[in-house]
Amino acid sequence: MEWEVWNGGLSMAATVAFAITAVLAIRDDRDIDVFGATVLGLITAIGGGTMRDIILDVPVFWSRELSYVWAGTAASILTFYGRRLFAARFVFSAVLYLDGFGAALFGIQGAAKVWDLEFGLPAAPVILGVLTAIGGGLLRDVLANRDTLLMRPELYAVPVLLGCTAFVSILNLLPQYRIPGAVICIVATFAWRAAAIHWKLAMPLFSRTGGTEPADE
Amino acid sequence: MEWEVWNGGLSMAATVAFAITAVLAIRDDRDIDVFGATVLGLITAIGGGTMRDIILDVPVFWSRELSYVWAGTAASILTFYGRRLFAARFVFSAVLYLDGFGAALFGIQGAAKVWDLEFGLPAAPVILGVLTAIGGGLLRDVLANRDTLLMRPELYAVPVLLGCTAFVSILNLLPQYRIPGAVICIVATFAWRAAAIHWKLAMPLFSRTGGTEPADE
Amino acid sequence: MEWEVWNGGLSMAATVAFAITAVLAIRDDRDIDVFGATVLGLITAIGGGTMRDIILDVPVFWSRELSYVWAGTAASILTFYGRRLFAARFVFSAVLYLDGFGAALFGIQGAAKVWDLEFGLPAAPVILGVLTAIGGGLLRDVLANRDTLLMRPELYAVPVLLGCTAFVSILNLLPQYRIPGAVICIVATFAWRAAAIHWKLAMPLFSRTGGTEPADE
Repeated sequence: MEWEVWNGGLSMAATVAFAITAVLAIRDDRDIDVFGATVLGLITAIGGGTMRDIILDVPVFWSRELSYVWAGTAASILTFYGRRLFAARFVFSAVLYLDGFGAALFGIQGAAKVWDLEFGLPAAPVILGVLTAIGGGLLRDVLANRDTLLMRPELYAVPVLLGCTAFVSILNLLPQYRIPGAVICIVATFAWRAAAIHWKLAMPLFSRTGGTEPADE
Repeated sequence: MEWEVWNGGLSMAATVAFAITAVLAIRDDRDIDVFGATVLGLITAIGGGTMRDIILDVPVFWSRELSYVWAGTAASILTFYGRRLFAARFVFSAVLYLDGFGAALFGIQGAAKVWDLEFGLPAAPVILGVLTAIGGGLLRDVLANRDTLLMRPELYAVPVLLGCTAFVSILNLLPQYRIPGAVICIVATFAWRAAAIHWKLAMPLFSRTGGTEPADE
Repeated sequence: MEWEVWNGGLSMAATVAFAITAVLAIRDDRDIDVFGATVLGLITAIGGGTMRDIILDVPVFWSRELSYVWAGTAASILTFYGRRLFAARFVFSAVLYLDGFGAALFGIQGAAKVWDLEFGLPAAPVILGVLTAIGGGLLRDVLANRDTLLMRPELYAVPVLLGCTAFVSILNLLPQYRIPGAVICIVATFAWRAAAIHWKLAMPLFSRTGGTEPADE
């Protein structure tokens, strides 16, 4: 019971963080109105899980738990009008870390859901875990005509990918450690992302086009 | 019976209007061939309802009513080759208003479908109503690498949002007035959109980034 | 039995070709890292069939046949790091033709799947056949913020469209010739695409905006 309360509370916080970072990013970039910003904030918050559920062919999670819709909508509108609040460095910073935590949490949650449905084991839980974490942000950037995460060397999705892979390995080999395994994978994924935010880490040069070849192409 | 005939006829007219406005918009913008234009016209006409039905997990509407596919395809091809026809100001104008009417009609129809399936009440009928109305246009703009509706202060989606909200309130509180309620909401939504077309109304300044803050960001 | 082995082997080769051409195209265009390139390669390889299956409301094909996922992922990573291999003109050329063959194969396979499910006959098998063939590439270009196929006068989708139409006509009128009909339609579609690659054929001028009207718009 207590576990579920924690899980629900953290998911809600992560949903709010996704909506806030989305609206802040879009708002700085472009002239946009409150309707457009709210749609983009909500899509960022619930879009990844929606695509996962459509591929799984199960009811989309928010159709039975509308609180995620209300939270994402309210957070988007409040952020649009209350931007000044986030001017304070530590508030903005807190939201950024919370967003990173959300990606870790949603990734592992997504992988667990796919695993429990025994859908396309063992690859699909990892793929759809990553989709849960970054899918909403991809949709937002596509709809806002911005470069998506895939085109930037940001260390955002790769920690989620490795965290989901580790978690699926635990579910496979040590199923009795599901809960501690989930916690450890979320914390490790988040720690990596937090380090990337703090020290502005990017993907290493050997993993990038620009890093391995001369720029003459 | 008569109601259904009206509903079917108007839906078909709106489908055609969506395809025509899509092809006209794309054609003015870019060098495109008849295949690309027709795909974009058809997607604009049936894309919103398709996404709604996928999220609802019901068969996509056009799989059982192919007339929408034929109408959207034919309208797109004819518009591509018969562009001169729309050079006449009043023809173009009529199509623009018909497109606005289509958005109102599809929004309310979409909300009604979601309501009848008791899917995610009360938020989902409004969200998916708006998706039905604007989803095809979003897909078109994304595929054509244009700025989507969400990034423009056009008064297009907000009337639909409020119309769907009003309609869902009626279904909730006064279910016996479903049909007159639908008619009133469609007419009011359309009237607002028509006013926006006629007087070139945009979203008010207080609802926009550019309007509430200096442009120094 | 032998037929199935051929079909499976060719599908796998086409999947690999789709991933390779995607990574080569993206890699030449932009600074990208191996994660982004692999996601785009995999999406190109399996995205079209995924969208088809979602619209059909059947389990996505790769959830039961993960070998497509592994093949697409491995081909993407190897292409990212082994780009030099494709510098040789005849290797690159072979992949390009294999990609064209893949589009023909996936189109006809997609149309056959839709036909067998008796979904939206007779239009849906053609529409979803084309979606199977080009949908992954559309997703890739949208996520990479590139112009999609629809905005280029390339002769890529139209041969697939006509090939699928011919195949559906055969299924309808001469169902006993299903297998030879499929082979002929795949070969004819591929031949047309191969001619387009070899002689750099584009869509004819009468089918293009730029071709039929002065450029003053």
